[in-house]
Amino acid sequence: MADSSTSMRLRLPLLCIILEVILIILFGALVEYDHDTHPKEWNKNRTSSTNDYKNEFYYRYPSFQDVHVMIFVGFGFLMTFLQRYGFSSVGFNFLIAAFSLQWATLMQGFFHGMHEGKIHVGVESMINADFCTGAVLISFGAVLGKTSPVQLLVMAIFEVTLFAVNEFILLSILGANDAGGSMTIHTFGAYFGLMVTRVLYRPNLNKSQHRNSSVYHSDLFAMIGTIYLWMFWPSFNSAITHHGDPQHRTAMNTYYSLAACTLSTFAFSALVNPEGKLDMVHIQNAALAGGVAVGTAGEMMLTPFGSMIVGFLAGTISVLGYKYLTPVLESKLKIQDTCGIHNLHGMPGILGAVVGAVTAALASPEVYGEGLQRVFGEVETGQWKPESKGGFQAISLAVTLGMALFGGLVTGFILKLPIYGAPPDTHCFEDGLYWEVPGEEEGHNELHEVATPNEVEKLSS
Amino acid sequence: MADSSTSMRLRLPLLCIILEVILIILFGALVEYDHDTHPKEWNKNRTSSTNDYKNEFYYRYPSFQDVHVMIFVGFGFLMTFLQRYGFSSVGFNFLIAAFSLQWATLMQGFFHGMHEGKIHVGVESMINADFCTGAVLISFGAVLGKTSPVQLLVMAIFEVTLFAVNEFILLSILGANDAGGSMTIHTFGAYFGLMVTRVLYRPNLNKSQHRNSSVYHSDLFAMIGTIYLWMFWPSFNSAITHHGDPQHRTAMNTYYSLAACTLSTFAFSALVNPEGKLDMVHIQNAALAGGVAVGTAGEMMLTPFGSMIVGFLAGTISVLGYKYLTPVLESKLKIQDTCGIHNLHGMPGILGAVVGAVTAALASPEVYGEGLQRVFGEVETGQWKPESKGGFQAISLAVTLGMALFGGLVTGFILKLPIYGAPPDTHCFEDGLYWEVPGEEEGHNELHEVATPNEVEKLSS
Amino acid sequence: MADSSTSMRLRLPLLCIILEVILIILFGALVEYDHDTHPKEWNKNRTSSTNDYKNEFYYRYPSFQDVHVMIFVGFGFLMTFLQRYGFSSVGFNFLIAAFSLQWATLMQGFFHGMHEGKIHVGVESMINADFCTGAVLISFGAVLGKTSPVQLLVMAIFEVTLFAVNEFILLSILGANDAGGSMTIHTFGAYFGLMVTRVLYRPNLNKSQHRNSSVYHSDLFAMIGTIYLWMFWPSFNSAITHHGDPQHRTAMNTYYSLAACTLSTFAFSALVNPEGKLDMVHIQNAALAGGVAVGTAGEMMLTPFGSMIVGFLAGTISVLGYKYLTPVLESKLKIQDTCGIHNLHGMPGILGAVVGAVTAALASPEVYGEGLQRVFGEVETGQWKPESKGGFQAISLAVTLGMALFGGLVTGFILKLPIYGAPPDTHCFEDGLYWEVPGEEEGHNELHEVATPNEVEKLSS
Repeated sequence: MADSSTSMRLRLPLLCIILEVILIILFGALVEYDHDTHPKEWNKNRTSSTNDYKNEFYYRYPSFQDVHVMIFVGFGFLMTFLQRYGFSSVGFNFLIAAFSLQWATLMQGFFHGMHEGKIHVGVESMINADFCTGAVLISFGAVLGKTSPVQLLVMAIFEVTLFAVNEFILLSILGANDAGGSMTIHTFGAYFGLMVTRVLYRPNLNKSQHRNSSVYHSDLFAMIGTIYLWMFWPSFNSAITHHGDPQHRTAMNTYYSLAACTLSTFAFSALVNPEGKLDMVHIQNAALAGGVAVGTAGEMMLTPFGSMIVGFLAGTISVLGYKYLTPVLESKLKIQDTCGIHNLHGMPGILGAVVGAVTAALASPEVYGEGLQRVFGEVETGQWKPESKGGFQAISLAVTLGMALFGGLVTGFILKLPIYGAPPDTHCFEDGLYWEVPGEEEGHNELHEVATPNEVEKLSS
Repeated sequence: MADSSTSMRLRLPLLCIILEVILIILFGALVEYDHDTHPKEWNKNRTSSTNDYKNEFYYRYPSFQDVHVMIFVGFGFLMTFLQRYGFSSVGFNFLIAAFSLQWATLMQGFFHGMHEGKIHVGVESMINADFCTGAVLISFGAVLGKTSPVQLLVMAIFEVTLFAVNEFILLSILGANDAGGSMTIHTFGAYFGLMVTRVLYRPNLNKSQHRNSSVYHSDLFAMIGTIYLWMFWPSFNSAITHHGDPQHRTAMNTYYSLAACTLSTFAFSALVNPEGKLDMVHIQNAALAGGVAVGTAGEMMLTPFGSMIVGFLAGTISVLGYKYLTPVLESKLKIQDTCGIHNLHGMPGILGAVVGAVTAALASPEVYGEGLQRVFGEVETGQWKPESKGGFQAISLAVTLGMALFGGLVTGFILKLPIYGAPPDTHCFEDGLYWEVPGEEEGHNELHEVATPNEVEKLSS
Repeated sequence: MADSSTSMRLRLPLLCIILEVILIILFGALVEYDHDTHPKEWNKNRTSSTNDYKNEFYYRYPSFQDVHVMIFVGFGFLMTFLQRYGFSSVGFNFLIAAFSLQWATLMQGFFHGMHEGKIHVGVESMINADFCTGAVLISFGAVLGKTSPVQLLVMAIFEVTLFAVNEFILLSILGANDAGGSMTIHTFGAYFGLMVTRVLYRPNLNKSQHRNSSVYHSDLFAMIGTIYLWMFWPSFNSAITHHGDPQHRTAMNTYYSLAACTLSTFAFSALVNPEGKLDMVHIQNAALAGGVAVGTAGEMMLTPFGSMIVGFLAGTISVLGYKYLTPVLESKLKIQDTCGIHNLHGMPGILGAVVGAVTAALASPEVYGEGLQRVFGEVETGQWKPESKGGFQAISLAVTLGMALFGGLVTGFILKLPIYGAPPDTHCFEDGLYWEVPGEEEGHNELHEVATPNEVEKLSS
């Protein structure tokens, strides 16, 4: 099935080895243990009363592992819904995530982690690298089934880089709050991916249409991804907030937003179906929109009440998007969005950014007390004004959209070069192109001995 | 397949939206951040030596996430064992859990979390809400495959409410210990569900009997649920015990109980089979009974030795229950218990309550030292006597059984009203009634082109 | 299918019950709560300023749960890749792990946890017991599909015992460092298992060859195992290092090693395939070798740079091992290694031991500062010399190899006795021998009504 034009025999090994060698060299030159991972630094002037539990590890490592599960199991299995693309979904997710987290460590470190020419790494940089990887995996969802692993790696190189630039502009220049990444991760990843898939538009994709759908068991595998994303989203949004109340509050707000989102997802999934039947696509995806939509405001005084309203709205627009907007995007705008990332990450991400701007603009010392500056860092420097803060949040959304669309455009054209072994229109959504695929179950094989219509015809003639 | 009588087109959206709107209004009126999630409270008089690691978040959030996994992945996938009910098992589990945790926050808060008219929420209330949700999901197991999602939501409304009342009586009035919920969660959920399924008895359920069994891969999906429940049960039982030694001890006792339970489960599963073959139903369920059975005594000085004895017994009675008692319950008492919750939660829950009463009655300051009052709170008020404590534990079991059976009876009759779109006897255990179900794998589809006996007949005539 | 010679009707129950009774008696006689789980000890002289967060539970329980997931989900599902052996893979993994962790508690406690004749248990002993269990499960991978559950339990009895002896020699006598168990767990488990499978060599295994391969969905189930092992390996390697910087550093080094390993695995998997197609066997296994290979040096100043080099090498040799060495081992050395544990645990384990020896030999107070003695405990007693330390590490590897090969040899001959109900050559890799196996999916069953070639022939004649 794989002719020389799609063979990964040389392309993939070459790219992987070259990239990893570059990574290793750059890590050797630039990366150092941070204070909490360095034996010399951490134990400087150690006395019997030195408190190891103050090590950042104990504040953040459980959250890191939850985020890690979301990246590798959550995203990976969520995309296994396609009937013949499970190996690629989990496998390529695995490959590009493993690459992206290394590259992100360097790019993010370069932009906001340099100390005397060195990048300091620890559990926080690990979480941030996983976050950046999340954006790449969101974009992967748009082009799922239509790209070679080499294309995906090249996409990751550019997307990670631009992610770090955008993140630097938002967090360091505009001073935006975005702990759970409604803007930096979800909006960015979604619109970047949508633009890439637009540029890579395939007019004849219908030749693979019969494979662009689920089967019974592939939908169950996908639910593994969904449920893990749903459960651990509170950890995702709270993973890099300040210690204490902000981390605690963010996790709780996210928990309530997701619960409300699940109810609106089920409600609207049944409502938009003529027979009132639930659609697995909605349940697998829209139920997660509540996590995306509180990614910015979750650490603020959104309250469980506000979180539930936001979650309910997010689930609603996400289901409606799958039902009514996705077909239009494909037919009118030529955006072929395999996983519907516009509905899960795009619109809910923008909603999250707007909610964040409004919630930030409504902040006051009366409500936050002495905790105000632990959410809005600029309070300490005296530069905090709620209205202008809300404005900067809004500007951040605009910058993110611009960066994502522009970056996706350029990257899309780079990915269009006919050198990456992309699948032909007839073999999209098909593992067999890039994987050794085993036969079906024994039971099936036995069935292959059954007469086919042709044989029957022959016999009966 | 879904005619108007079972259509969820209006019923489900209406109920979901009304419920969520009510929840949002009540949350807006009643729910507030607790001390550890509120920026003002947590940072009051903050100094440089304020210790964020004392925030409840760091003591309990990892346990919370483990419990969360048990509720959504554990219960959800455990019930996917049925051949054509995987979407409903994971999906309805998801829906009713998302609803129940919100409703439980209000009900439990109302009964034991009010502060000046407000319900305070934080990680502990999140764990408690998940616990209450667990009871609903246990009951779900009894009626699995025979109820519409609307019926399940209505059941959850009543069960959560009554759970909170029962929990209040046990913990606040009777002063019972029940950290892991042998009584409040497992006994309550099991007997409530058994009574509901008794009232909903279907004499003609045999019309769906061919779907009331597993297939090879559905049993593997179910094992995902089993293993996660098994692994994280130590976190479940210890999640709301006191900090320090009780949390540590409870986790360890549960770990040993489950290990011993697994061996007795395998032993008796082989023993009761004429050919000595293991039965997946036993492994999937009975191996978990050890966690249920130390839910009350786990925080006490049960010791690993005692835990292992209890676990071994729990696995044994659970397997024997599946083999010999379940058929009798169905034929004589008309209790159709799809998942066998009586064997996994009912009997082991009662065993756990009895073990708890005995272990509490044997407690002494000599053994517990100054830790006594951290297990038995009433020591501080001087009202502690081991024998009477044991008595109150026993009374708590009786109260729980009474509340569960009575509540299940009433709820069962409410669920019997012909307005919820329940599945007909011919379409139980069938996803197709409430879900858009995709075809089988490509391999299968190809096989559909194979001649059917009819065609063969036609051709050969 | 199960004739009397393979029936588990009496053998398995008898063995399980006898073992568990012995375990319970020994636990009753020997096991006690340790300081952090005992109410009396932990609360001795308790004051209002007693800090519960210093309880070992909070340092290690999240890591313990990650390790626990690796043992039960990771190993269990990794081995479900076989088409008709999923029940046995997850189920026997479950059984022998539940037994091994209890037996390991006693054996490890006996060798290095005795306090006045009693074995003290807490979260650290739980982690160590899970570690020891890991070694047994590695060996299980070599004999997968060719052994009865009774044989596996007998193997576990001997392997756990010898593991504890070897661990005692390495850690207590030779003073070796091996936090993540490159030697004690991976090298030991691998070579023990390889020797067992050598002794149990089946010349006629080709009679079951058609079942010794994967199918599409079984490979996806196996990926669940792979991904969980991969994600939580940082927790595995860091679980029992010192608090603070060593735990933090070990987790991070492992994270980078695994990321680099994944890229080399994909690279070489495509490179060694004539069509450039990726092989699931490589992705499922070789991508994990990076975790094995930093099991000894991970806590030292290996740096992310060094970790990535080691990980890259580990992935490379592992893929090459699967491709070129495994067939030779089978044809020339008669080692039938079902899961290829030599490639995942054997060679990477040795690599890890060598890297550990070299890294230890390069240690200096200049680099580690006051943290030196928290990695190399012997610094405190003044007996530390980097070169001799490196030597002791190398000796430890040799001892481990000797113990594993000798122990595997003896255990192999014990397992060869014809009393355990081992599967005949014609029924290896087959769940049906020891499990009640349900039919295929409904869809399939319906297809059974399709005419078979025989019927067609009859009709058309």
